[in-house]
Amino acid sequence: MTETPTAAMIVIGDEVLSGRTRDANTQVLAKMLDEVGIDLREARAIRDGEAEIVEAVNALRGCHTYVFTSGGIGPTHDDITAEAVAKAMDTPIGIRDDARAILAARYGEGPDLTDARLRMARIPDGAALIDNPVSGAPGFRLGNVFVMAGVPQVFAAMLDHARTMVEGGARMHDLSIPCPYPEGVLGEPLGAVAAAHPSVSIGSYPRLKPGGGWGVTLVARSRDADALGKAEAALHTMLAELEGAPTDGE
Amino acid sequence: MTETPTAAMIVIGDEVLSGRTRDANTQVLAKMLDEVGIDLREARAIRDGEAEIVEAVNALRGCHTYVFTSGGIGPTHDDITAEAVAKAMDTPIGIRDDARAILAARYGEGPDLTDARLRMARIPDGAALIDNPVSGAPGFRLGNVFVMAGVPQVFAAMLDHARTMVEGGARMHDLSIPCPYPEGVLGEPLGAVAAAHPSVSIGSYPRLKPGGGWGVTLVARSRDADALGKAEAALHTMLAELEGAPTDGE
Repeated sequence: MTETPTAAMIVIGDEVLSGRTRDANTQVLAKMLDEVGIDLREARAIRDGEAEIVEAVNALRGCHTYVFTSGGIGPTHDDITAEAVAKAMDTPIGIRDDARAILAARYGEGPDLTDARLRMARIPDGAALIDNPVSGAPGFRLGNVFVMAGVPQVFAAMLDHARTMVEGGARMHDLSIPCPYPEGVLGEPLGAVAAAHPSVSIGSYPRLKPGGGWGVTLVARSRDADALGKAEAALHTMLAELEGAPTDGE
Repeated sequence: MTETPTAAMIVIGDEVLSGRTRDANTQVLAKMLDEVGIDLREARAIRDGEAEIVEAVNALRGCHTYVFTSGGIGPTHDDITAEAVAKAMDTPIGIRDDARAILAARYGEGPDLTDARLRMARIPDGAALIDNPVSGAPGFRLGNVFVMAGVPQVFAAMLDHARTMVEGGARMHDLSIPCPYPEGVLGEPLGAVAAAHPSVSIGSYPRLKPGGGWGVTLVARSRDADALGKAEAALHTMLAELEGAPTDGE
């Protein structure tokens, strides 16, 4: 069996850490990676400071097959991600003709092609552009690092292109089973099922229902469809054996 | 001026990194910390593996005044956060009488006090309990690490207590100004305002409007109210000078 590719996400922007904005991009990336068989192992939100970006990129790009960033590639002074990633990877960066042409096609060669907008044509040497069908200004892939926009619609659009640039692995299969028993009741038999099916990751996800009381969803995940099927059968057997058990409490 | 306290968040749970769940707790924590004058510097989402939790706790607790975790303290086999944090901090852990009493008050001493539920009474030696008015089972503070539940309603309730256990700093003041010009137009004058007000953090946050086109919000933040007032005046002057500039494009 070949090794499963892994990935990390770096969410760049003070607005997430000040509570002003709730990050939406990690979940979109997570779903895409799940579909192509890449394990997202970590997501970090950091401030848009050069030192923070350099440190995170260099901490993660050596440990993972791919690293994705979101945020900080717009036209304003606080958009420093492209420069910081280039610095982390010791690569020269400047306004590149191919990226400039994309912006000139949108804004013309007149006064609308402002210096601020031209900042968005700053691309590290050797990087491949990532298409931005929403607003033109591209992202880029430098080595195994994918640099993309923070605005969710643009991030998602760039991800459609980025997806074609990665090599996936075996897909994770999964299934969910709603469960009427709280975790305090199903915890022990569930642990036994999990222990008996070590190649399947079995989790239980509680939530508070709007009317009060807990709802629990059992989730089983595995790259081995056969093993997953056996775990599913064991979970249904467990639930049948729990019939009549108390359904209240945590 | 005293140093501003800093914090890091560790979101623990496979469900966030598989895309099944979108983390809500970081934003709630971020807003609370903002209110009490603590800088949230980083948020990491990691898988619920012991090695991952130990590594993240030890990487962050030495760099920040406070570390907060969410997730993995329930009654099932995949709830391993309490043990992993105790291991990271080299502290014995076991069922503690004070935590057990909280659960016994809710579930009695009979069969409802299952072994699974008693897992939630496992608290490291010397840790202070964090109240859970929603479902009883407490979180805890060990040293500068606050261990809390992943279910958003429980996390938020625990945070009300955790808030009383931290020492805040000077509050960050902030203001938002909606702006009709895209970043490509305001980027240069905005950069000049930011450069002239180095003690104020000035950001611009673009969003795609439902009907098309960009909306931008200017945000200025500072612990120095006087400096913030001056930056605000400069931003309004800048916007007045931009009057008549194009409002389309990025």
